Amino acid sequence: MARPIVFLTDYGLEDEFAGVCRAVVARIAPEVAVLDLTHAIPPQDVLTGALTLGRAAPYLPSDAVVLAVVDPGVGTERRAIVVETHRGPVLVGPDNGLLSLAWIALGGLAGAYEVEDPKLLLEPVSATFHGRDVFAPVAARLASGEVEPAQVGRQVAAESLEKVHVPAPTVVRGGVSAKVLGVDRFGNVELNLREQHLVALGITDAITTGPFTLKRVRAFADLAPGALAFLVDSSGWVALVASGGSAAVALGLAPGDSVMLGPPRPPGDG
Amino acid sequence: MARPIVFLTDYGLEDEFAGVCRAVVARIAPEVAVLDLTHAIPPQDVLTGALTLGRAAPYLPSDAVVLAVVDPGVGTERRAIVVETHRGPVLVGPDNGLLSLAWIALGGLAGAYEVEDPKLLLEPVSATFHGRDVFAPVAARLASGEVEPAQVGRQVAAESLEKVHVPAPTVVRGGVSAKVLGVDRFGNVELNLREQHLVALGITDAITTGPFTLKRVRAFADLAPGALAFLVDSSGWVALVASGGSAAVALGLAPGDSVMLGPPRPPGDG
Amino acid sequence: MARPIVFLTDYGLEDEFAGVCRAVVARIAPEVAVLDLTHAIPPQDVLTGALTLGRAAPYLPSDAVVLAVVDPGVGTERRAIVVETHRGPVLVGPDNGLLSLAWIALGGLAGAYEVEDPKLLLEPVSATFHGRDVFAPVAARLASGEVEPAQVGRQVAAESLEKVHVPAPTVVRGGVSAKVLGVDRFGNVELNLREQHLVALGITDAITTGPFTLKRVRAFADLAPGALAFLVDSSGWVALVASGGSAAVALGLAPGDSVMLGPPRPPGDG
Repeated sequence: MARPIVFLTDYGLEDEFAGVCRAVVARIAPEVAVLDLTHAIPPQDVLTGALTLGRAAPYLPSDAVVLAVVDPGVGTERRAIVVETHRGPVLVGPDNGLLSLAWIALGGLAGAYEVEDPKLLLEPVSATFHGRDVFAPVAARLASGEVEPAQVGRQVAAESLEKVHVPAPTVVRGGVSAKVLGVDRFGNVELNLREQHLVALGITDAITTGPFTLKRVRAFADLAPGALAFLVDSSGWVALVASGGSAAVALGLAPGDSVMLGPPRPPGDG
Repeated sequence: MARPIVFLTDYGLEDEFAGVCRAVVARIAPEVAVLDLTHAIPPQDVLTGALTLGRAAPYLPSDAVVLAVVDPGVGTERRAIVVETHRGPVLVGPDNGLLSLAWIALGGLAGAYEVEDPKLLLEPVSATFHGRDVFAPVAARLASGEVEPAQVGRQVAAESLEKVHVPAPTVVRGGVSAKVLGVDRFGNVELNLREQHLVALGITDAITTGPFTLKRVRAFADLAPGALAFLVDSSGWVALVASGGSAAVALGLAPGDSVMLGPPRPPGDG
Repeated sequence: MARPIVFLTDYGLEDEFAGVCRAVVARIAPEVAVLDLTHAIPPQDVLTGALTLGRAAPYLPSDAVVLAVVDPGVGTERRAIVVETHRGPVLVGPDNGLLSLAWIALGGLAGAYEVEDPKLLLEPVSATFHGRDVFAPVAARLASGEVEPAQVGRQVAAESLEKVHVPAPTVVRGGVSAKVLGVDRFGNVELNLREQHLVALGITDAITTGPFTLKRVRAFADLAPGALAFLVDSSGWVALVASGGSAAVALGLAPGDSVMLGPPRPPGDG
């Protein structure tokens, strides 16, 4: 039975790029279902692509073939790779770190191969659109069972693969300097902080940033009207949220920004 | 044979939320097709979600399972429900009115059940992402035939379910005050008026609003260049339209706005 | 076996229009897969729709049914047509030129038919939404094999069909005046120039436009940081590109604009 392809790119949906890749898959393997994860990764933003894949990885079918393309190095010597994971999903994409958080989330890397066999590709391979000419055809052949990962080319050492670097929060006097990993459609601000960081900082039910004190809530509907708050989101990250509006706008935060957070000020302080 | 899932949310496509729900369905029921209706309902706008589902309902396959998530109350005591309709489609979503215009359009409610059985869900259920943890898994199991609606939990009374309130137009001296239900990509302005309201107002082939007189047309191409006009749109609502441009921009109208409409002024008036 | 439908429109994804068409297909032919090419053609921009279909055509499955709707003439006497091509794909859409570059890219037109049989449509046919009421139902019946192209209505002469006019570049003193065909998500500027035009102009490894000299590169990663350059893109068009940014923004170019290009100035000139 065919495996489903889970598809993520920075192609957007304004152009036909993602659609052409879907057509290429349908041409090679008509029986394969293609499931869009998202195509709205910011252009060439490998870290955001890796974080998104890492967040989604635990929810993928165990037989999924992940087709991921965020590829500023397209047309250069960067390798095209196929990665097997211990939990089952197989990952196809450029060797630039994009896949690295997914294989960690999927129990670790069980094998990695460089795409070399020209018979698997769409010839002539362009210098600018490997989603169409390299990654989609290889993913289609893996999903249909036409080839196994080990058949695409030589095995490569796990240590030689690129990984992304997720910035860690920095403990500073009186608090922590966190980074904004992303802002979602609702304006929720996802930070590079997990529950363990809150514990280490002694933060339990409230946090301060600038002039604001944010209470911890469990769900969006627990916020008082107009209030800012924080919660641990559905991916395990600390997120700053606002009632009926955008915490990103209220706090002036965008992806990549730094934000200082501290425990609540004692009463009478300030 | 598996039933198709028809999927509507306010998740947008910028984030991976809709994609993760699709992955959850594929994991539980790989044979089920998921068909995106739209994910661009404005954030937490239950009324727009309900109107959109209501407009689309007559065109759904009779065996469709509708998976609808616009859910400002996620993580609170609001119920998760499954609704059977007389025309066939089964509706899954939060009990906040989102499904209510769809069940009316589908011949009325034939049964409603509260989702209770924890075995149907993705455990642990987060407090913020019930699309992934509650609604998608339940829809997948209904679509695959693993469970019947009556098996998800206790039956609930139709009268106890939330419904949305679609604002009615108000007859005022010399005309009617209508509400803008929505503005589509082409800038067409959909109003809370139907043919019957025009008849009641004695409006046949022209309408006035502010300084403008809009003639009635049948199709977009019937407009004179640069002209504004009105028509009864493909969903039966009165819509204000513009030739080769946006009636919303020309008239300065946005969803939720009120607009005064009247019959044409008699010649020589004003 | 069912044929896949490849779906392109100017409906956008903000509204449910594309989703309703998918529902109509699922209702008539549940076994048919629908593959979105793009729904982001600018509203009523038939030329951009035709160019996009033409670029994608070589990558389509040979049994594809193309369902294409960019239709400013909806509700008028413009014909609804079904076109057979020599390479296999069948095209369904309005007779306004939208399909014309696709049938050229697919080896030419092998037969064309006007949609006439009312039994194939969704009755009553609205005057404003033929995607839902005419084109999707016909495409579904062709894809399922319920009807053959020749059964939808009378054969029409190829010469009578509308074609789009792709503007040709104009040779002027000292260079060429090109048109911007499109700007993609990455800000790459696609021009109405092909390799043959460069050869005719004696342009090999550099081009000038205004104060800028752009070197030819093979891949995006070959650009020096901050540099502008040009390449022949994955569809065979000359594209102006920028390192890590938008060439369209850097050069102030938008779709439809004209741009003067010339060979490099000799050293010491100017």
